Amino acid sequence: MNTEKLIEKQISSRLVFDGVVAHLYLDEILLPNGERSTREYLKHNGAVAVLAIDKDDNAYIVNQYRYPHGRVITEIPAGKLDFAEEDHLEAAMRELREETGLTSASVTYLGEYIPSPALLSEVIYLYYATDLSLGAQDLDEDEFLSVEKLPFDMLVQKVLNGEITDGKTVCAVLKVDKMRNEKK
Amino acid sequence: MNTEKLIEKQISSRLVFDGVVAHLYLDEILLPNGERSTREYLKHNGAVAVLAIDKDDNAYIVNQYRYPHGRVITEIPAGKLDFAEEDHLEAAMRELREETGLTSASVTYLGEYIPSPALLSEVIYLYYATDLSLGAQDLDEDEFLSVEKLPFDMLVQKVLNGEITDGKTVCAVLKVDKMRNEKK
Repeated sequence: MNTEKLIEKQISSRLVFDGVVAHLYLDEILLPNGERSTREYLKHNGAVAVLAIDKDDNAYIVNQYRYPHGRVITEIPAGKLDFAEEDHLEAAMRELREETGLTSASVTYLGEYIPSPALLSEVIYLYYATDLSLGAQDLDEDEFLSVEKLPFDMLVQKVLNGEITDGKTVCAVLKVDKMRNEKK
Repeated sequence: MNTEKLIEKQISSRLVFDGVVAHLYLDEILLPNGERSTREYLKHNGAVAVLAIDKDDNAYIVNQYRYPHGRVITEIPAGKLDFAEEDHLEAAMRELREETGLTSASVTYLGEYIPSPALLSEVIYLYYATDLSLGAQDLDEDEFLSVEKLPFDMLVQKVLNGEITDGKTVCAVLKVDKMRNEKK
């Protein structure tokens, strides 16, 4: 693939809104044909998400009100990196522990997940955690969520029938399902 | 699940940046515990994406420079709804035709995909298109992409080995793979 002819070059970059979580940039760019254009996007340090499954094959999910969607959405435990260079695995284990109280003695990396390549610079690092021990939840002050566990097979069905639609959750569940079916 | 205790209520809403594609809102909200907080998010009309597979079992993918990531990313054909009430299937067929030149005589709906529930209101409607005919590509003026076709099995492998990381693409590929394996 000749990617040279697809490249966009930065002319200038301006931070137009610097919020608590949203850092919005408006960049002037040069298109591959030499014309000028603009790109608007949110800069993001990255995030982690963890599909945790216990010895009885139950998966842990969190239900959380997602304000932009005006409803509760079901997701696997996840959270932002505290800083860009934070160790991904450590961050994943922290978020899992804080949101569910779980620690894991066996973690597999499932790869990167890019939620929205045109609008967000965010990359989410996905993990699969087993060999679990349950301790106490430790939520941030402004974090409200309810944890549920359900059989992994049922979670796969909820992904396939469209009940679960969160992208990182769908990706992690179907990747783990595929891995397990290939081992059989 | 008792979701009442998770709900966040709007106090006020303010459009802080109204760009070409990014419409950034800063809302003041009431948390479930009665405290005040803020939410920053991009409002979005929604989008569509299509996994198209021909009679020889080749899938069509597009390679596109994604400025926030500073590199070319491989995705299935996709695009924004032109307006919020646009028919999803019509939009999906338009984007497929514009980006690849393909029309399809058999389309299956794969469900919703939520790319980033905390930061974007965007929902992407996923489709699986077969029975294809190839016509001419018809790109927007500022759209630069290269179309490739590759065997569907190879696309599944690229998802599993982490070469393909775009979320909507991973979701559509693994859903179709699972559907096809269950039919066998």
